[in-house]
Amino acid sequence: MPGAALPIDPSVPGAPVTAAILDNLRRIVGDKGLILEEHDKQPFVTEWRGTLVGKAAAIVRPANTAEVSAVVKLCYDNGIAIVPQGGNTGLMGGATPWPTHRGILLSLGRMNHVLNVDPVGYSMTVEAGCILETIQETAAHHDRFFPLSLGSQGSCMIGGNLSTNAGGVQVLRYGNARNLVLGLEVVLPNGEVWDGLRALKKDNTGYDLKNLFMGAEGTLGIITKAVLKLWPAPKDVCTAWLAIRDPQAAIEILSEAYGASDDNVGSCELMSRAGIDMVLRHIPGTQDPLKAETPWYLLLEWSSSRPRLDGSAGMSEKMEQFLADQLEAGRVLDAVIAQTQAQSRNMWRIRESKAEANRAEGPSLSYDVSVAISRIPEFIDKGLKAVLDILPTIRPYPLGHIGDGNLHFSFMGPIGMDRATLAQYSAAITRAVNDLVASMGGSISAEHGIGIEKIDELSHYRSKTELDVMRTIKRALDPKNIMNPGKILRL
Amino acid sequence: MPGAALPIDPSVPGAPVTAAILDNLRRIVGDKGLILEEHDKQPFVTEWRGTLVGKAAAIVRPANTAEVSAVVKLCYDNGIAIVPQGGNTGLMGGATPWPTHRGILLSLGRMNHVLNVDPVGYSMTVEAGCILETIQETAAHHDRFFPLSLGSQGSCMIGGNLSTNAGGVQVLRYGNARNLVLGLEVVLPNGEVWDGLRALKKDNTGYDLKNLFMGAEGTLGIITKAVLKLWPAPKDVCTAWLAIRDPQAAIEILSEAYGASDDNVGSCELMSRAGIDMVLRHIPGTQDPLKAETPWYLLLEWSSSRPRLDGSAGMSEKMEQFLADQLEAGRVLDAVIAQTQAQSRNMWRIRESKAEANRAEGPSLSYDVSVAISRIPEFIDKGLKAVLDILPTIRPYPLGHIGDGNLHFSFMGPIGMDRATLAQYSAAITRAVNDLVASMGGSISAEHGIGIEKIDELSHYRSKTELDVMRTIKRALDPKNIMNPGKILRL
Repeated sequence: MPGAALPIDPSVPGAPVTAAILDNLRRIVGDKGLILEEHDKQPFVTEWRGTLVGKAAAIVRPANTAEVSAVVKLCYDNGIAIVPQGGNTGLMGGATPWPTHRGILLSLGRMNHVLNVDPVGYSMTVEAGCILETIQETAAHHDRFFPLSLGSQGSCMIGGNLSTNAGGVQVLRYGNARNLVLGLEVVLPNGEVWDGLRALKKDNTGYDLKNLFMGAEGTLGIITKAVLKLWPAPKDVCTAWLAIRDPQAAIEILSEAYGASDDNVGSCELMSRAGIDMVLRHIPGTQDPLKAETPWYLLLEWSSSRPRLDGSAGMSEKMEQFLADQLEAGRVLDAVIAQTQAQSRNMWRIRESKAEANRAEGPSLSYDVSVAISRIPEFIDKGLKAVLDILPTIRPYPLGHIGDGNLHFSFMGPIGMDRATLAQYSAAITRAVNDLVASMGGSISAEHGIGIEKIDELSHYRSKTELDVMRTIKRALDPKNIMNPGKILRL
Repeated sequence: MPGAALPIDPSVPGAPVTAAILDNLRRIVGDKGLILEEHDKQPFVTEWRGTLVGKAAAIVRPANTAEVSAVVKLCYDNGIAIVPQGGNTGLMGGATPWPTHRGILLSLGRMNHVLNVDPVGYSMTVEAGCILETIQETAAHHDRFFPLSLGSQGSCMIGGNLSTNAGGVQVLRYGNARNLVLGLEVVLPNGEVWDGLRALKKDNTGYDLKNLFMGAEGTLGIITKAVLKLWPAPKDVCTAWLAIRDPQAAIEILSEAYGASDDNVGSCELMSRAGIDMVLRHIPGTQDPLKAETPWYLLLEWSSSRPRLDGSAGMSEKMEQFLADQLEAGRVLDAVIAQTQAQSRNMWRIRESKAEANRAEGPSLSYDVSVAISRIPEFIDKGLKAVLDILPTIRPYPLGHIGDGNLHFSFMGPIGMDRATLAQYSAAITRAVNDLVASMGGSISAEHGIGIEKIDELSHYRSKTELDVMRTIKRALDPKNIMNPGKILRL
């Protein structure tokens, strides 16, 4: 790392990329690794939903770590800013350059090789540009399971997943991305390569650099490879759809589900009647698993890597017993267990199509927040009241990874209200939701990160002490502020 | 955090504690919080086994975070070095001051309150000075489980456990200390308090400060409070003792145990015949669970939070079936399942008395190392050969948290050889073991940390790049180098 810190002026978006530097970049990555035509750059510099459009002097696509290192070294020496990018599926603009960006965008997409699978050691070594779904399938091919699972898994890349500490629907059991990684290789802001690519479950030798780079959204370095943890492949999976009394019942059901399932709770997703109906309206082929009129539902999945044996109680039998007990306790009002793969897929499709249905329905506002699990019901009550006080005709569609204390607290605009009008309420509603989150000790970004979108909110809600520690780390590791500048923190 | 970095001279052990500063310390913590008599200081400045004896101008025992903050601020302003200490049970000297230390030792022992238990939310908030066993018992009282478990649990304090990222016998299932924590409160090197005391399972808002302070051995700040994760209390536990073919069989048995147990493997500890015999010789009341002559054994424990119900297959039935299958496959040669609590306790006592038996037997050398799980058998083969090449009559007693890839690679000196003579071989043997670890991509300190003991080894075996990143972080967060100086890294 460089010794003396240089003066930092956040208003300067790095040095410009000159023709000489382009020549050097071409020497490193070849013509194949360089995109200079404006038209060809557009998919990289545009946020995937089109909400943000940035600029980059070049899209640089290295083929291996040595090339990434050489590119970063070149940029470091010349003060050129770098925006690293994986599958460009993030929701906070972390992978999109600012419109004032004068440097390069470095895409990891060509580094897409699975380097090694160790089924006995339950680990897999991959390059950062591997598509998440490829990793899942490779694990399954070896009778193993890689639990990271999210809507964009067909196009997101593992490097981006790790850089944003991605969440998803399996966090309850397996944890966020941070919990799924044994080791990393990272190209540092000065171009040096940190080889932390260890397949070790235990390693107490100094500071935890791995977890520092994960979730840093590319502002401290570029993750180029990772050793991922694998788990046994699920062999006995039971998916159930529960009409429940209220969110408090959901917490209690989950609390009792651990024991009843032999500690095999995989997912526990809270949904509302309104949200389910919206999916049924917009997504062809989805069917209501349960005709009930109660406002709250739970998608509960238990899974075990133990194959179901004749005569012994599998997940379904345990689930049946559990649901009967919960019905008797009044927490569950009605329930159905998926009897076929198609039924289970239908349940999951309803859950996972929520975002798509949202977009089809019209303009909406959504907040990715978390509080302590036991405070979820209180948060829903107070949060709905606060938002409805501002705009009484807004339509709430809360949805939750309830076992993680994580709500996607979503609202469709009032019927007939256009996007521009809804936007006029957005600042007040955002403030009300985030103030409530902060007052309850929660997080304003549970799993989506900060990127560009929440940079001001982070600065508002986190203490000066905390922001100062983060800035101190950023300045120390990236003294020229070339790594994804203007993301997470303003310096 | 302070802006400009001051010049650092590692040869200067901080400023001296003057009479005026003692007065200020007394004003902050009162007479009750200050120990100045040499005799009374000894238990604090002496490593618990007596292997290291350091110095401190005063032992300061604050009663709360505000007092810790005020003490650290005073030291920061005056350049006085601080050695934080919990239960003083570490194995690497991280909590022991250097003999050249002129500053204070700050003991967290008076901050020993459990502040809150949230059974529904599966979390508990504690002060850093809480004894680990108290935390375990408090969790159990609420029908919950805190999995951190290690030999010193009756006297070690949670702050020290977290600062060293402690391991133990439950890591296989629950992870190291880092995986057991939701939030932290930390007093920073300038005396400011970082309030990261969040009870959140998900929080993607910037850099992972929590994991940076954990495992930093007090060199980046002082952990004062923590929100711990809880788990369902185990209700159906099955402990078995297996005579096995060899270490490779142990890996394969574990690999298959996940599925067979419904993902309920709790512990999997590899032991040798020689190690078991040594415990039986020295520890009164221990009994050999299995009369067999094979050299390798496994303590395998499965546990579920689901109470065993009449008629359904519990852990014992699953274990029986599994052991029968493994016998048939030739991996297990003989096995016994504990039928009573006393039998299970006896098995665990043999495992946990290993260190005590070692001390009773005579002088020994021990290495806390890890490699990828699948390479454990290769490591044992090559490691034994390398050590026996240096000292053919040394007596190997390897022991392993095999599911973590973690071996306590221990050796008793040859019969009749005294400590001083064995010590002459120590450097060569240490070098041989660590060179092998490094060549296999392993860790020279799997769970015990670095402290004073391994500071030179870390510096030898880690890359310059990695050490530079660590130093950069240390210098940025602790520019006056007052936080546990001379531990982990030399600046």
